[in-house]
Amino acid sequence: MMVLITYDVNTTTEAGRKRLRLVAKQCVNYGQRVQNSVFECLVDPAQFAQLRHRLEEIIDQEKDSLRYYYLGSNWKNRVEHVGAKSTFDPEGTLIV
Amino acid sequence: MMVLITYDVNTTTEAGRKRLRLVAKQCVNYGQRVQNSVFECLVDPAQFAQLRHRLEEIIDQEKDSLRYYYLGSNWKNRVEHVGAKSTFDPEGTLIV
Repeated sequence: MMVLITYDVNTTTEAGRKRLRLVAKQCVNYGQRVQNSVFECLVDPAQFAQLRHRLEEIIDQEKDSLRYYYLGSNWKNRVEHVGAKSTFDPEGTLIV
Repeated sequence: MMVLITYDVNTTTEAGRKRLRLVAKQCVNYGQRVQNSVFECLVDPAQFAQLRHRLEEIIDQEKDSLRYYYLGSNWKNRVEHVGAKSTFDPEGTLIV
């Protein structure tokens, strides 16, 4: 299943940028970083359970938020992109 | 229909922050700012055509990107939130 994950984090702090790097690192195991803090992950239920467990350990739940959108099987018809197409290097310095 | 709009913009610049404010201002006419640059908009096709036209005029298409996710009618079952629940003031200073 396709799960869209959006991560809201304060990237003006080094700690926030680090959490974003860690979240990205987990998400790109299962999919694609389509925007700086938006990930499209193709997972089965067991993988998703594992992924979200990891993500929820990484984030600061007092400050950050994660949203999961279950896009279903017909997800390719549900997505449209406008503007710059960036390629993000999950290991590199992030541009925020 | 529910359209999820994610906006990728460099908010380290004043110009980027301004574009985000303008995008947010348009989106909140139709829905909710659920994260700093993630909006859930309930629109009919005509409203959506108008909204996206405005957004695509605001953004810098060389630098920024917008993604539209058509969540369909069953969208409430497709969304899950973890962590901080922020209320964003679209007119105020944005926390990035």
